[in-house]
Amino acid sequence: MKIHDLIAELREPSKTKIVMLVADGIGGMPLEPGGKTELETARTPNLDKLAAEGVTGMSLPVLPGITPGSGPGHLALFGYDPLEYRIGRGILEALGINFAVTSRDVAVRGNFCTLGIDGKIADRRAGRPSTERCVAMVDKLRGIRLPGVEIFVEPVKEHRFVVVFRADAIGDRVNDTDPQMVGVVPLLAEGADEPSKKTADIVNRFVTAACEVLSADAPTNGITLRGFAKYPKIGTMEEVYGLKAAAIAVYPMYRGLARLVGMNVLDAGQTLGDQIARLQSVWGQYDFFFLHYKYTDSTGEDGNFPAKVEMIEKLDKIIPEIVALGPDVLIVTGDHSTPSKMMAHSFHPVPTILHSKLARTDAVTTYGEASCLFGGLGHFQAQHLMLLAMAHAARLGKYGA
Amino acid sequence: MKIHDLIAELREPSKTKIVMLVADGIGGMPLEPGGKTELETARTPNLDKLAAEGVTGMSLPVLPGITPGSGPGHLALFGYDPLEYRIGRGILEALGINFAVTSRDVAVRGNFCTLGIDGKIADRRAGRPSTERCVAMVDKLRGIRLPGVEIFVEPVKEHRFVVVFRADAIGDRVNDTDPQMVGVVPLLAEGADEPSKKTADIVNRFVTAACEVLSADAPTNGITLRGFAKYPKIGTMEEVYGLKAAAIAVYPMYRGLARLVGMNVLDAGQTLGDQIARLQSVWGQYDFFFLHYKYTDSTGEDGNFPAKVEMIEKLDKIIPEIVALGPDVLIVTGDHSTPSKMMAHSFHPVPTILHSKLARTDAVTTYGEASCLFGGLGHFQAQHLMLLAMAHAARLGKYGA
Repeated sequence: MKIHDLIAELREPSKTKIVMLVADGIGGMPLEPGGKTELETARTPNLDKLAAEGVTGMSLPVLPGITPGSGPGHLALFGYDPLEYRIGRGILEALGINFAVTSRDVAVRGNFCTLGIDGKIADRRAGRPSTERCVAMVDKLRGIRLPGVEIFVEPVKEHRFVVVFRADAIGDRVNDTDPQMVGVVPLLAEGADEPSKKTADIVNRFVTAACEVLSADAPTNGITLRGFAKYPKIGTMEEVYGLKAAAIAVYPMYRGLARLVGMNVLDAGQTLGDQIARLQSVWGQYDFFFLHYKYTDSTGEDGNFPAKVEMIEKLDKIIPEIVALGPDVLIVTGDHSTPSKMMAHSFHPVPTILHSKLARTDAVTTYGEASCLFGGLGHFQAQHLMLLAMAHAARLGKYGA
Repeated sequence: MKIHDLIAELREPSKTKIVMLVADGIGGMPLEPGGKTELETARTPNLDKLAAEGVTGMSLPVLPGITPGSGPGHLALFGYDPLEYRIGRGILEALGINFAVTSRDVAVRGNFCTLGIDGKIADRRAGRPSTERCVAMVDKLRGIRLPGVEIFVEPVKEHRFVVVFRADAIGDRVNDTDPQMVGVVPLLAEGADEPSKKTADIVNRFVTAACEVLSADAPTNGITLRGFAKYPKIGTMEEVYGLKAAAIAVYPMYRGLARLVGMNVLDAGQTLGDQIARLQSVWGQYDFFFLHYKYTDSTGEDGNFPAKVEMIEKLDKIIPEIVALGPDVLIVTGDHSTPSKMMAHSFHPVPTILHSKLARTDAVTTYGEASCLFGGLGHFQAQHLMLLAMAHAARLGKYGA
């Protein structure tokens, strides 16, 4: 039996409220064996209080040893099996620039490249043009019109852009046109099934038109496309859990991921203070609140241990304002670890707090990687966290008589 | 590969003996955060000794956050995936009154209701009649005869009874006739497939006859039926594990669940002392013994913390008598938690002891929710406990060369 079917069977209406605070990449590592992690170094009296009053554990985002991107990391936290629900690169890129993808769309990541007079690729990234030039080139591509399809072209950064093809019955089983090497011509698109053949035909005509439009613009005189993807079929949080869900996230990627599972994506301003103000102002209107905090991840990716410590302490300070609202369940976790030492996402489990009146408390009194190992939730799969949230919010009935 | 197929491949004959003592709802919660649970409050020198000599851990009955009923809770302990093997309400009700269901039966829960002169339901529970009246009304229903089907009607309590239809090739995909509201007439039964259409036809004729028989008996002048269910196809403990299994349980529901998986259900008397005497008297005849103790659950459901503590202490006293028999594996666990504080089954993991010469002992020296968190079995799925039992009883060979 699938978990979502089980939830559909057991869920019960309730007025309880759940807050899931995702500190992106919160898990870390000591710089030296035996040392403290970023989280253990940070002074976090408020998070420690939550850990002491609640139940803790270690979240495994996907599987032991698997390092997740932001997509699978968040899908798992929202209770969607990250190995079942996959989000293609094109869709993730579109979500990342806040493009409102529809079910009729095929999205793809584009790169400007440099083509020689023989049509072969001389530079796969067109000499890394400025983002201004990217915007200007995208503007030219926007002039391309093809019958039977709406085409949206959006700049991302430097040589990167996104194309969205909108038409009925088009598929995403189309190969990348990027050969991932220089000295060869870009590949033709081919479709692996009928809807995808329709897409491939559109794509090839678009690429031909693009090369004409850009012919005088070397080094940005060609394009390659990769990661054709449709919007995945995915039940909304309301359909799966019966939760009216709101996302309070600053960065487009996380807003997009929240929109993907049907959350209402609210204006979150720019700062943690703005996010808390929004949470307070809409408290009565939703059952579930996803708060996303980016800076624990970005400082980790920068390899800046002290900055990550500082960002954790900054997060700690706003915890009392969330607690003051009286959520029935308050979860603090991350979508993955981002140890400063590794300057990247990692596969390490993520220390997690679940604060609730129904929590069976454990002996853990601080929020950290070493302490949460001894928590009452043990090691658990991130995709089960929503089951725990629903249970502790008294929103799941008994299974079987 | 399915676990039962794996076991069939690996199991080895042996004379070892396994005792599984299920203290129903043993897991609890502190009344106040930071306090002790019922189990931690109880003085349990014998259970603590078992914990010290054996290996401990936390059992997850179904999935994190899922609160099981007695059916799924026990099926999991017996090693049957509770999400795969589901027991319908009709069957559970029949098991609960000790009715010997066969594979030809469709069982259903019945309610006496009050019908107005317009045939509409005026009271779904017929004003909660006395159980004596229930018995008298059931006696009238027993007079109903229909061709091609044997019908058994059994009283349960107040307005509740059970009907079992026994015939060849009848199905259970039949809707409830209970509309779950007043002011409307009971629903007609309809079958979703051919065998179930046959059932529905029998059911509709039975209901018509019942209303005639009861027409002068307002307020118990009508019936509704819900939870049509057949006996699930399920391998016996002997087929799956090669274990000759005996159940020593006092309450009908648990006797019925044991019969469901092919255990021999023995006369267990009324008290724990009776159960131990039975265990001693049949010790040489079986490989596996399921002992069920109800009062840790019923006191929890009553919200009576001190009574649950007392029932745990009572259980502790008989442990030496089980140990004296020299079982190769002695497991103490529960089918779920029933915290007095919640007055209900809960989703919290269940502290578990596995006592065996082959146990790799851990540092745990007391039986409790906090201590067993540190046990050598970690957090494990209840449906894997029989694998552990078989392994520690040296009844499973090596997998692969």
